[in-house]
Amino acid sequence: MGVKGFRAAGVPCGLKKNGALDFALIVSEGPAIAAGVFTRNHVKAAPLLVSMDRLKSSRDRVRAVVINAGNANAMTGAQGLHDAEQTTQLVGQALDTGADAVLVLSTGVIGQLLDMQKIAAGVDQAAHCLTRTWDDAARAIMTTDTRPKLRSVRVTQADGGTYTIAGIAKGAGMIAPNMATMLGIVVTDAQLSAGQAQQALDTAVPQTFNRIVVDGDMSTNDTVFLLANGASGAAVQTDADTTQFQAALTAVCRELAQAIVRDGEGVTKFVTINVSGAVDDQAAWQIANTIATSPLVKTAFFGEDANWGRIVAAAGRAGVPLEVDSVRLSIAPGVDAPDSADALLLVENGTRTDYDEADATAIFQAAEITVNLALGLGDGSARVWTSDLSIDYVKINADYRT
Amino acid sequence: MGVKGFRAAGVPCGLKKNGALDFALIVSEGPAIAAGVFTRNHVKAAPLLVSMDRLKSSRDRVRAVVINAGNANAMTGAQGLHDAEQTTQLVGQALDTGADAVLVLSTGVIGQLLDMQKIAAGVDQAAHCLTRTWDDAARAIMTTDTRPKLRSVRVTQADGGTYTIAGIAKGAGMIAPNMATMLGIVVTDAQLSAGQAQQALDTAVPQTFNRIVVDGDMSTNDTVFLLANGASGAAVQTDADTTQFQAALTAVCRELAQAIVRDGEGVTKFVTINVSGAVDDQAAWQIANTIATSPLVKTAFFGEDANWGRIVAAAGRAGVPLEVDSVRLSIAPGVDAPDSADALLLVENGTRTDYDEADATAIFQAAEITVNLALGLGDGSARVWTSDLSIDYVKINADYRT
Repeated sequence: MGVKGFRAAGVPCGLKKNGALDFALIVSEGPAIAAGVFTRNHVKAAPLLVSMDRLKSSRDRVRAVVINAGNANAMTGAQGLHDAEQTTQLVGQALDTGADAVLVLSTGVIGQLLDMQKIAAGVDQAAHCLTRTWDDAARAIMTTDTRPKLRSVRVTQADGGTYTIAGIAKGAGMIAPNMATMLGIVVTDAQLSAGQAQQALDTAVPQTFNRIVVDGDMSTNDTVFLLANGASGAAVQTDADTTQFQAALTAVCRELAQAIVRDGEGVTKFVTINVSGAVDDQAAWQIANTIATSPLVKTAFFGEDANWGRIVAAAGRAGVPLEVDSVRLSIAPGVDAPDSADALLLVENGTRTDYDEADATAIFQAAEITVNLALGLGDGSARVWTSDLSIDYVKINADYRT
Repeated sequence: MGVKGFRAAGVPCGLKKNGALDFALIVSEGPAIAAGVFTRNHVKAAPLLVSMDRLKSSRDRVRAVVINAGNANAMTGAQGLHDAEQTTQLVGQALDTGADAVLVLSTGVIGQLLDMQKIAAGVDQAAHCLTRTWDDAARAIMTTDTRPKLRSVRVTQADGGTYTIAGIAKGAGMIAPNMATMLGIVVTDAQLSAGQAQQALDTAVPQTFNRIVVDGDMSTNDTVFLLANGASGAAVQTDADTTQFQAALTAVCRELAQAIVRDGEGVTKFVTINVSGAVDDQAAWQIANTIATSPLVKTAFFGEDANWGRIVAAAGRAGVPLEVDSVRLSIAPGVDAPDSADALLLVENGTRTDYDEADATAIFQAAEITVNLALGLGDGSARVWTSDLSIDYVKINADYRT
């Protein structure tokens, strides 16, 4: 997934005990516009604090993003901040860009200091391995992910100009709205302003990365960056250009976000939760999120048991208005499947319909399931993408550090 | 655990497929004062709606509580309401008390109509099996519980009068603050007014049943009843009597609540989460609850992995103020263990101390663990009792209906 003027590398620097790739470097040949969205967790990892500063001082001349896996550099105090800054210094020296032009991210275990000798070795090696292919970089940012996540789209503008938007992401655990143990780095060779880039990212993230739920946890390190270096020569100028860019960026982010859910820890099901008819969008979101994080709902999906009472019970405890007598619930196989004639109606007016249990079980046996919950109270709606809760999720997270 | 003037029965009426006890009846020989606390879930099961009505009309002359397991009679519409009322009619006829004097509860699967023939058979059999021992009744209200939960305390008043407070409870899954798939029936032969009874229950529940978290779900059926028939002749009259009664009731409720956590689905650890130094008690509670419901925290307990970063990360996303630089975290073996010299200090001023990992692991290997998180922001504090999230939790809940 080459993007003009960008190169990437992924190398093993020794932070992962098994010798796997754990150090990624993404470089723009010229100065790039940069935008970022960060976790809302009150506990923010050191590299995020450094990167937030860098975006303030250098958001129109970023040259590199450096990312390590295996250690989150979170809750590491003054030494952690120093180490994150030092990492940007090392990259700035190796690339001759200066530390100011370098963004830094980390993912992994919380509360341990970085081994800076390994980081230095990673910088040195990665700077010599930069290529136009992103596969190694996508692998190097993985933690409990089982596969790299890369997506790209090529856009042709009305005036014939073409550009590419491409991104890599990692997720797997601690996935929750408001940015989980989730890193996303999206780059484009389109030309746009820093303001345009931040606005486009601010629009895309709430519809994509903030709509995914694996376990309801939100990490200290979640970040999405967008870098734009203009190397394609195609400028995003007219309203039509902007609309087109936004759609393409949102599509890349949506595909990456959905890939994170599909590769969530121990995930066997991809579930769309559609809530409509809530008193407002916020209430719909709270209900969708409560359903998506309910262990009882998630284990029912894992068990392929159409125990829909758990879905409605979760909705009822979401802390927002719900009238049981007006609840309508249908399920259908597939992603984002509508409440159409093909869906199986389970509940109408708050009471079970005379559906056939075998039909419900058949839908729960699909790998992709959509739940449509209509409340009949107002116009609020929300959609989230989530997963089941499996035995493997517990195994993976019980043994994470060992 | 005999209580004067009360008798109980537990029989199999066929709602549980395996022929286990599933129908309980608790009877007061004379009229009893009754108080109740019900789920705050917007979706309330039919028997709760009927019992809430009964408490309004008959709270000073209740004669019986009838409870079935195996079917929650929730989301069953008008027919479900009719069935719950019919159950009280059947009991009222069998005991010659009238339906008005009968409270009704159900627990089990949501969305299925009760088999009223089985209920009728249960009433008939139970009415003939009433005894002073409560073991069968405690067993008959179990769902995925592995053992019955009974507690009692005998109280001697300053004037020499004696009375007993005794209770049974069931829990296991869907355990969350604000009353989960949790039923509690507490009875006493002390003499008190309906107002005293409701106030005592309203005081006890927030400190006990509402402090336990297994999986964060809240059910449609959660209820705690207190019945007082005065058969001991000991009246709760003076302020000292009231204080003594409150302490004894709260103690019984606390023991039942903790027994529910200990018998939670797949539970291998009993964990106390103490939060102090929050801006207020509500903020402390939100942080304690967020930690207690975090799948990442709970799987770390199951894995006996002192991965405290997950605890602080959960606190950071609780949506209330937290300053990482003033966070202090210690752990100790035991229930409600204080942050004393015996505790192991893991984090001070937001940074890892130089504790020995082996010491932390040793504490995480204990069956009972206390986490003390001090925020240094104010005087708010909260305590919850919770459990780990194990492979067996997933197995139990994936297969619940089959």
